[in-house]
Amino acid sequence: MNLHGKHLIAGQALAAQAPSFTGVVAASGQPLAPGFSEATAEEVDQALTAAAAAAEEFARTGRKHRSDFLQRIAAEIEALGEPLLARAHEETGLPLARLTGERARTCGQLRLFAEVVREGSWMEARIDPALPERKPLPRPDIRRLLQPLGPVVVFGASNFPLAFSVAGGDTASALATGNPVVVKGHPAHPGTSEMVAVAINRAAAAAKLPPGVFSLLQGKSPETSLRLVRHPLAEAVGFTGSHTAGRALFDAAAQRPRPIPVSAEMSSLNPVFVLAGALAERGPALAEELKNSFTLGVGQFCTKPGLVFGVKSPAWEAFAAAVGGLAQKVAAGVMLHPGIAAGFQRGVAGVSGVEWLAQGTAPVARVTSEVFRARPELAHEIFGPFTLLVTAKDEADLAALARALDGQLTATLQGNAADLAAAGGLVALLEKHSGRLIVNGWPTGVEVCPAMHHGGPYPATSDSRFTSVGTAALERFVRPICYQNFPEDLLPVPLRNRNTLGILRLVNGQFTRDDVT
Amino acid sequence: MNLHGKHLIAGQALAAQAPSFTGVVAASGQPLAPGFSEATAEEVDQALTAAAAAAEEFARTGRKHRSDFLQRIAAEIEALGEPLLARAHEETGLPLARLTGERARTCGQLRLFAEVVREGSWMEARIDPALPERKPLPRPDIRRLLQPLGPVVVFGASNFPLAFSVAGGDTASALATGNPVVVKGHPAHPGTSEMVAVAINRAAAAAKLPPGVFSLLQGKSPETSLRLVRHPLAEAVGFTGSHTAGRALFDAAAQRPRPIPVSAEMSSLNPVFVLAGALAERGPALAEELKNSFTLGVGQFCTKPGLVFGVKSPAWEAFAAAVGGLAQKVAAGVMLHPGIAAGFQRGVAGVSGVEWLAQGTAPVARVTSEVFRARPELAHEIFGPFTLLVTAKDEADLAALARALDGQLTATLQGNAADLAAAGGLVALLEKHSGRLIVNGWPTGVEVCPAMHHGGPYPATSDSRFTSVGTAALERFVRPICYQNFPEDLLPVPLRNRNTLGILRLVNGQFTRDDVT
Repeated sequence: MNLHGKHLIAGQALAAQAPSFTGVVAASGQPLAPGFSEATAEEVDQALTAAAAAAEEFARTGRKHRSDFLQRIAAEIEALGEPLLARAHEETGLPLARLTGERARTCGQLRLFAEVVREGSWMEARIDPALPERKPLPRPDIRRLLQPLGPVVVFGASNFPLAFSVAGGDTASALATGNPVVVKGHPAHPGTSEMVAVAINRAAAAAKLPPGVFSLLQGKSPETSLRLVRHPLAEAVGFTGSHTAGRALFDAAAQRPRPIPVSAEMSSLNPVFVLAGALAERGPALAEELKNSFTLGVGQFCTKPGLVFGVKSPAWEAFAAAVGGLAQKVAAGVMLHPGIAAGFQRGVAGVSGVEWLAQGTAPVARVTSEVFRARPELAHEIFGPFTLLVTAKDEADLAALARALDGQLTATLQGNAADLAAAGGLVALLEKHSGRLIVNGWPTGVEVCPAMHHGGPYPATSDSRFTSVGTAALERFVRPICYQNFPEDLLPVPLRNRNTLGILRLVNGQFTRDDVT
Repeated sequence: MNLHGKHLIAGQALAAQAPSFTGVVAASGQPLAPGFSEATAEEVDQALTAAAAAAEEFARTGRKHRSDFLQRIAAEIEALGEPLLARAHEETGLPLARLTGERARTCGQLRLFAEVVREGSWMEARIDPALPERKPLPRPDIRRLLQPLGPVVVFGASNFPLAFSVAGGDTASALATGNPVVVKGHPAHPGTSEMVAVAINRAAAAAKLPPGVFSLLQGKSPETSLRLVRHPLAEAVGFTGSHTAGRALFDAAAQRPRPIPVSAEMSSLNPVFVLAGALAERGPALAEELKNSFTLGVGQFCTKPGLVFGVKSPAWEAFAAAVGGLAQKVAAGVMLHPGIAAGFQRGVAGVSGVEWLAQGTAPVARVTSEVFRARPELAHEIFGPFTLLVTAKDEADLAALARALDGQLTATLQGNAADLAAAGGLVALLEKHSGRLIVNGWPTGVEVCPAMHHGGPYPATSDSRFTSVGTAALERFVRPICYQNFPEDLLPVPLRNRNTLGILRLVNGQFTRDDVT
C-alpha cells in the first residue's frame, strides 16, 4: 500500500497545506516517508460537515447493516496484512508480537460490538403502554430508545496505534451506535493511521454508506485538536492521552456556546497495596510480577502500576530490594516516540529526594509516607517504566495513604487469605477513588468484555460514569429519545408492539422479550 | 409546625448569620414569617463535610433499608398534612388542588424509586467469569456494579415546590442510589423547603442513618450556589431552573480543579407543529387545547409550548384567531413570585415587531418565518403564559424551521392520519433537537415512569444523555466499579455467584437471574 500522506475526508484524499511532519522510526528518530500535512480550518469544517450530512442516514441503518459494517472494518484491517504491522512497528517501536496481539484485540473489539449491535438489547427499549382508564389522569403511551448523538471527534492515542487509535475503542463505540466519526490521527503514527483509515473507507464503501460517515485528519498542532472540539457540528469527543491534553479538550468542549460531552481517559497511577501476608508468602514472586507489570510495553500503559504501598517490615525491605534488583536488569526498550522517551527522562530526572532502588532503564524509587505526603508532585504520572514504592508506618498509615489518593483507573490489592479477610475497610477506601479493583493480579491487561470498566474518578477520566473499554463504552455516544402517543408506523422498529427484533425490553417496568399486546 | 428559619445541617437547626430574607405571599408580595439566613461558607463546608462522612455508611445500606427510607420520606411528607400545602400555597400562589397533585407525584416518585431500589436490577450487575483455559491468555474473573458517586448538591426549583424541590426528583434519585444530598432551597419557598427537610430528617432518624445523609441550606445569593458547586467534597449537581443560572453552575463545575457532572434542566421552547390535516379536522379543538397547555400552571412549566408552527392557509389563520380569542379571555393567574411575574412582564414587553393575537394575561403573538429567522431573540424562553405562532410559507419552509431549532425537551406534532403518514422526515428533524416527541398530545404533563425521558440537547439540558424524570434519572448519580479476581466474600452481595437478590444480571453477555455456577 502506497501512503499518500493526505487526509481522508469523506472518502477523498485531500490536503490543502504542504507536508509539515512525518512519522519517524521510533528507535532512531529517523523520518519516514511520506510527509503529512496539518489539517486546515477548512478541512476540519469539510470533515464535520460531511459527517453531519451522513448522520441521519447512518443513524437509520438497520442493526444487521451496521453490524456487517463493523465486521467488514475488522476484515479490511486484517486484509492490510503484514505491511500494517510493519509500519506500526517502525512508527511506534512496539514489537511485532505485541502489534499482532493488538490487531487481534482491535478486530475482536469490532466483532464483539458488531454482535452487540446485532443482538440489539443495547438500545434499552422501554415501553410504558397507555393507561386510558387511570385516575385522576390517563397515562399516554410512552416509549424510549437510545439514539446516536451525531458526529463524534476521536483522538488517536500514541500508545495503542491500533486498539486506541483510528479504528480503536472510541471509533468502534461511535460507529456501532450510529454516529459518524472524524478521527484526528496521532502524529506519532500517521502512516499507520492512514492505512487503517483506508480500511474503514473500504468497508464504508462496501456497505454503501455515505462517505461522510468516516474521516481522518492528520496534524500535530494543538490548535487543530481544539478546532475540532469547538466545531459547531461536533456532538461528542473521545480521547485517550495525557492529562494536559485531555483537560484542554475538556475545557474547550465545556466552554463552547453549546457544550458537548467529552470522554477523556487521561492519567492514573494505578496504586498497588502489598499486604503483609502476601509479602510473607510470596514476596519474591510479587517482586517479579511487579517488575513485569510496570515494564510491560516499556511502561507505556495507562494501567501501569506507578505507586506501590506497603507497611515497613523486613519483608517489605526484602521486597523493595528484590524489585530494585530485578528492575536494574531490565533491558532497554524502544519507546513510542523520541519525544516520549525524552519526556520520560525528564520526568525521572525530576524525581529527587528519594531512595533509588534501581536507576537503569527501569528506574524504581522509594520514599516514606511522610515524604510522599509532603511532595504531591510524586503522585503525578510518569509515562514509562518507572514506579515508586511508598513505605507506610503501619496499617493505619497505609489506610490514610489509600484515603488520600487521587482518582485512578485501577487499584490493586496483593494479599493472602488472612489479609483479604481483614481488607474490607481498605476496599471501601479504594472504591472511592478507583474504577477497577483487582485482587492478586496486576492492572496491566484490560479485558474487552461486558463487565469491564475502564474509567475512574478525575483525573483518571473526565467523567467517571463512563468506560472507554468493554461493551458499556457504547453508552457514551447515545442519548434517549422518548416517543409519546406515536402511531405504530411512525415508531422506530425496536419500539413497535411486535418485538420483531427479539430484544430485551423494559415493558411496564418488567424486562421481557414478549410482544406488547 | 413552627418554622425556625434555620438551615438543617446533618439534623441540626443552625444559622450563623442573621435572617436576611423571607418567603413572600406570591399574590401580594407581603413577607411571611420567619426570616431566613443566607448560608455561610462555613455552613456549606459543614453540610458537605457531614455528607462526605456519611457517604460510605449510606452507600453500604442494603436495598431494603434504603427502600424503606424512601418510603418513610414519602410517609413523613404526607404526615405534614395540610399545613405543608397551605404554606406552599402562600409561598408560590399555586392552587391547593395543584399542590395536592404535586404532593402525590412527589410521594409517588419516592415510592416508585423505592420499588426500583428494592428490586435491584438498576445496579446493572455484570459478571464475566474467569476463563482460565483461554488462549493466548486466560481471562480473569471480572464483575461490575453501579455504585454511588458521593455527596450530591441539589438546587430546588421555583415552579415545583415539592416535585422538583427539597424531596423532588433529584433528591430522590440521589438518595435512592446511595448518595448523601445537600439541598440548596429555592428562596421563593423557604418555609415549604424547611418543612420537607424536617420530614426527610425524621425519616433518616427513623432509618437510623447517619444524619449527614441530608442537609438543607437556605440562601438567595448566587455566591452560595457557586460555593456549593465548587466545594471539593461535592461529587455531582442536580438543577432545574433558568438557562442563566444553570449555565453558571455548569461552568463552575467544569472549571473546578476536579470537574464534577452537572445534571441541569434549563430552557426549552417545546415547539408544536400543527399540520394541515389536523387543522382542517379539528382546528377549534386544537386552539382550545393549545390555550389550555400554554396557560397551565400560569405557563410556569419547563414543557410549556412556547412556539407553534404552521403553514400559511385559511385554516391556520382561523386557528391563530381562535387561539388569540381564547387567550384573551384567560383569567389572571398568580405567578410563583413577584420577581417571576415581573420577569414575565419584562419578557413580553421585549417582544416587538410581531402581530399580537392576544394581549391580556396570556399574550399570544405571531410572526412570519422570515421575521422569526431574522430575530433570534424570539427563540428564547419566556417563562410564563406566552406563546408565539410562526407562519411558514409552505411545507419546505416548515421543515427548514424544524431543522434550525435549538435543543428542546419536547417537540409535538399535531396531525391527522394523512399528515402523519407523510411526517417521517419531520420526525427525523425533530429527533435531532428533542428529548421527547409527542403526537397529538401536549408537552405539559410529564409522566414519572421507566420510559420517560425528560432531557434534551443543550440548552434544554447540560447533558442530553440523562433524564431528570423517570426511573432512568437514577443513572445520573452512579458510576460503575469493576471487581477483578475478587474472592466471593469480598465482593458486593449483588455480584456474588449466588444471585440471592434475584436481580437481572448480565452474565457472559447474557441477561439472566440464574446463579453463576
